[in-house]
Amino acid sequence: MVNETQHTCSASSSSKSDGGSSSGSESSKDSSRCSTPVLDADRHERLREKMRRRQDSGDKWFSLEFFPPRTANAAVNLISRFDRMGAGGPLFIDVTWHPAGDPGSDKETSSMIIANTAVNYCGLETVLHMTCCNQTKDEITGHLQKAKRLGLKNIMALRGDPAGEEWEEEVDGFNYALDLVKHIRNEFDDYFDICVAGYPTGHPEAESYEADLRHLKEKVFAGADFIITQLFFRSETFLRFMKDCQAIGITCPIIPGIFPIQGYHSLRQLVKLSKLEVPQEIKDVIEPIKDNDAAIRNYGVELAVSMCRELLDSGMVHGLHFYTLNREVATTEVLKRLGIWKEDPRRPLPWAVSAHPKRRVEDVRPIFWASRPKSYIYRTQEWDDFPNGRWGNSSSPAFGELKDYYLFYLKSKSPREELLKMWGEELTSEESVFEVFTCYITGEPNKNGHKVTCMPWNDDPLATETNLLKEELEKVNRRGILTINSQPNINGKPSTDPIVGWGPSGGYVFQKAYLEFFTSSEIVTALLKVLKKYELRVNYHIVNVKGQNITNAPDLQPNAVTWGIFPGREIIQPTVVDPVSFLSWKDEAFALWIEQWAKLYEEESPSRMIIQYIHDNYYLVNLVDNDFPLENCLWQVVDDTFELVN
Amino acid sequence: MVNETQHTCSASSSSKSDGGSSSGSESSKDSSRCSTPVLDADRHERLREKMRRRQDSGDKWFSLEFFPPRTANAAVNLISRFDRMGAGGPLFIDVTWHPAGDPGSDKETSSMIIANTAVNYCGLETVLHMTCCNQTKDEITGHLQKAKRLGLKNIMALRGDPAGEEWEEEVDGFNYALDLVKHIRNEFDDYFDICVAGYPTGHPEAESYEADLRHLKEKVFAGADFIITQLFFRSETFLRFMKDCQAIGITCPIIPGIFPIQGYHSLRQLVKLSKLEVPQEIKDVIEPIKDNDAAIRNYGVELAVSMCRELLDSGMVHGLHFYTLNREVATTEVLKRLGIWKEDPRRPLPWAVSAHPKRRVEDVRPIFWASRPKSYIYRTQEWDDFPNGRWGNSSSPAFGELKDYYLFYLKSKSPREELLKMWGEELTSEESVFEVFTCYITGEPNKNGHKVTCMPWNDDPLATETNLLKEELEKVNRRGILTINSQPNINGKPSTDPIVGWGPSGGYVFQKAYLEFFTSSEIVTALLKVLKKYELRVNYHIVNVKGQNITNAPDLQPNAVTWGIFPGREIIQPTVVDPVSFLSWKDEAFALWIEQWAKLYEEESPSRMIIQYIHDNYYLVNLVDNDFPLENCLWQVVDDTFELVN
Repeated sequence: MVNETQHTCSASSSSKSDGGSSSGSESSKDSSRCSTPVLDADRHERLREKMRRRQDSGDKWFSLEFFPPRTANAAVNLISRFDRMGAGGPLFIDVTWHPAGDPGSDKETSSMIIANTAVNYCGLETVLHMTCCNQTKDEITGHLQKAKRLGLKNIMALRGDPAGEEWEEEVDGFNYALDLVKHIRNEFDDYFDICVAGYPTGHPEAESYEADLRHLKEKVFAGADFIITQLFFRSETFLRFMKDCQAIGITCPIIPGIFPIQGYHSLRQLVKLSKLEVPQEIKDVIEPIKDNDAAIRNYGVELAVSMCRELLDSGMVHGLHFYTLNREVATTEVLKRLGIWKEDPRRPLPWAVSAHPKRRVEDVRPIFWASRPKSYIYRTQEWDDFPNGRWGNSSSPAFGELKDYYLFYLKSKSPREELLKMWGEELTSEESVFEVFTCYITGEPNKNGHKVTCMPWNDDPLATETNLLKEELEKVNRRGILTINSQPNINGKPSTDPIVGWGPSGGYVFQKAYLEFFTSSEIVTALLKVLKKYELRVNYHIVNVKGQNITNAPDLQPNAVTWGIFPGREIIQPTVVDPVSFLSWKDEAFALWIEQWAKLYEEESPSRMIIQYIHDNYYLVNLVDNDFPLENCLWQVVDDTFELVN
Repeated sequence: MVNETQHTCSASSSSKSDGGSSSGSESSKDSSRCSTPVLDADRHERLREKMRRRQDSGDKWFSLEFFPPRTANAAVNLISRFDRMGAGGPLFIDVTWHPAGDPGSDKETSSMIIANTAVNYCGLETVLHMTCCNQTKDEITGHLQKAKRLGLKNIMALRGDPAGEEWEEEVDGFNYALDLVKHIRNEFDDYFDICVAGYPTGHPEAESYEADLRHLKEKVFAGADFIITQLFFRSETFLRFMKDCQAIGITCPIIPGIFPIQGYHSLRQLVKLSKLEVPQEIKDVIEPIKDNDAAIRNYGVELAVSMCRELLDSGMVHGLHFYTLNREVATTEVLKRLGIWKEDPRRPLPWAVSAHPKRRVEDVRPIFWASRPKSYIYRTQEWDDFPNGRWGNSSSPAFGELKDYYLFYLKSKSPREELLKMWGEELTSEESVFEVFTCYITGEPNKNGHKVTCMPWNDDPLATETNLLKEELEKVNRRGILTINSQPNINGKPSTDPIVGWGPSGGYVFQKAYLEFFTSSEIVTALLKVLKKYELRVNYHIVNVKGQNITNAPDLQPNAVTWGIFPGREIIQPTVVDPVSFLSWKDEAFALWIEQWAKLYEEESPSRMIIQYIHDNYYLVNLVDNDFPLENCLWQVVDDTFELVN
């Protein structure tokens, strides 16, 4: 925190808002005849453009600051926090830089890797902090090159804390954030958006408030795109600072850094490090309740809400930057009370997009990874370009192997003990596996009273959309059709539908019914007989772990199963069932039985052998009902199959 | 006809049937991520593959032979005959080669240019005849190179008639069709599909029937893909020939050449040239009725139908080749009575596709050229690749100028006198122009009792689909909204719908309502006020001849207005309203006022000045109602506009 509190700043968060009217200059530059139809203008804009567009439209926004975690487990938790807080619609998040924590390394707890995960796997516009003092030019260039390679597009340029007490400027070294800003512009031209720190009461080491303002102006004129301020306790402090900045010619966005007080100790520590003075009126309230965490937090929320309201009401502030201290509750509450937390913000596409610049045209994916988007991103990270408009029929794209199930952004959020409680300490038969699937669907506790909130194929509880199919899914899972992915058919619901909607408003979304499951070879034999009756109405792919594959897909072409029609756009078809990539998914889907489930048990144990048996002998099946305007026939297919089996 | 009767043969016609199960090998070779989803397998197959697929599926087919016309006017008529007879679903047509008529030249009556037009502008699979005797190797290679450049893929290799009576073989020259077959395979590898002629009673110049069979075998073994036979009068003649061919090891398709007798003189001439003997039983019928053309044609149709039935019933014949003599009635009647003429064959896409190999992935076009597909093809002929999957938003593709309104495949089918009768010998006011538009819509005769069956923007009567809007269109044209293109909204009709359906069966087609018209600036002013109320629901583009352009299209992106959802396929969106290409269309649409209409009248005449005034002052407007599931609001928009004007 030392570095961070002293240079507290950062800039703007990945929004999933509605696209609408962008300048289009970027998009037209990048697009070809097959380009994405710019459904979501945000994906094609630089952070500074997003900020400008929000300012022009009068749409208020917020951003969130996090610091890198200390342990791998904490990293897993932080990433799921990114996902949850990302759902509120931040314009960006930022990740601080801890020189002591090997911030540019490949460790899963490094600033670099956390920022990488936020951009690529959580789809968040991300600003990576970077400090420069006590580092060589080559080290700094190396960090910047790595950041660029990983798809990071925004840097918060900071000085950082000098190593010793007796700090002396190095000749030709990086002594100030200004040096870093200049270096970035020299070496990387306009590639990065650059943010710098502003100090509403002046930097503690500056000669004077005025000298600090002049210094800030130098940073901006050297190429910084926007400013995030150190925290402050009164809105007047920020507003006066902003006017002073404008008076000396600083015209870029200046974003106030908001610190909701969350506890007595964290406040004291922060104040000490930042050398800020806590106003007497705040001390007066806090001191008497210093041992009551809840009371302090409530007070902190109240205080932050009222200060933010003053800032927004001033008309000078368009975005708010939150120092979250990696916590969710206080910041989320402030944002909700301010009305700028977007509950269920509109999804630009039905799946979580990645914010990597290479992927910004991506708008088609196979449905198979619907519940494992991070794995999909991981397995396609080496692709040179991404499908847009259509998936195409020769896209036998090389999916990377997924052998790295231990990767922190792919791991289950739940520890082994939790998983055992959910999935059974001891399995006695295939039926006890059916039971686990059924409990996951119903949300009812299992025999031992534990709810099954995740499965190897899905780390989250059932999607709201899947809930539409709950009753039917329960029935079939009980009888050994072990579903891992499904969607109902949708015949033209408004794109703003809270459950199945996505994309800009004014559109209509459609789906073909989809069902994917593991099942025994006995059921598959009956199923194939039943499917004959349905001819082309139902497309199917049936494959076992060895890759024996049965399908009626014409010419191995992909089948669009989700699409949307929007005003003034070409058709978007973000999800396909693709026969070719299904075989890559198959490897992953079967391996998850072993990697996530079987390995919970001792080798040679009956439980493990049951899972192994299923892995070795079951088939993975997917079914699409092409007649989306009619009632979904897949349940009838399954019913007919059960009847034939009996 | 001399050459043709002597070597009568040719092979199989461009079908628009349903695609279905192709091998897919070609398509996967050619496709990329953005490739066309092989909606129509035919488009991706070579002629010989189409033939094989039809044979395998047991689906009977036919093909049509034409000879090049003598005059430019006859060329215009022949091309519209191609369009009409193409609608019956021939597997291919073929165009004969007339050495005396400069067959490889760029004249609009040359064999080469007629075949080019059939392929590129009428979308017909086409076989070009080519003869070789009395020509140098270089001349022949030149013809073949030109054919390839124009997109022709099939050659009927013939000897041709020796120039003089006393023909002698030239050493190292091209003396037989066999030499030409070898030459094509040597110089062009497998690029062309090659057809050769077979003589059911032996070539008249052959030593013997057996020698001729051996000669035919040589041609096949040298690389011919299929055989079309000389005409014959009895089915036994062909069936015996076919068995004899098979007996000596000829296994390629052999297609019987059918000559429906259409008149006494044409029969006598043909018989003389082909040195065939007309069977006595036919002579006995014909001689007594030789002056009664209708009776002879009826007899010829009867005879052809019964012989074709015998051939098809034999189980050995899958396709029939018709010597049409460039006439429609007899052949069409035979085909209809045989049940192999496909009334309204299913359209692979809602517009007429081109058969040029470069265009086989093309599956998106701007709606503007819907009634002028030949002009669209002409103006995009220089494109290196064609949009598929989506049109894209930077497709400011260079449309060729359309200055060549005189080109025979772009000209009106009707002569000047006809047009004057339809569009008015004398115009007295803008209202008299409104009246012409209204008559075209209603189908009622104009004041002078003439029906208006075409307009400068549409050379054919109103499409069946447009008929759905007839009542509304009549109302608005009467009041000066001069419509030139429109489609109703369609919310998921079966792809087999006889009026709006297209693509393979089992799918659903959709449309957004579209209306395009010329109108006065007074109406435009009111319209713009009205459109404000509709916001994003209605996309509009309004432009005058000078290019002043008003639109609410987001980022100048194209708007998909026709799309289809099919079993096991990606979404197809064949028609878009594209703001960029609209400006190219605008030039053409305005120019047609002058080129096709104003120029009918004397310079400085009042009629001409009225058209010129409209051209100079009216606006071209297009409107899309994005809310396709709701009732079309465009009529309300127009009503509101009229109300505001009054």
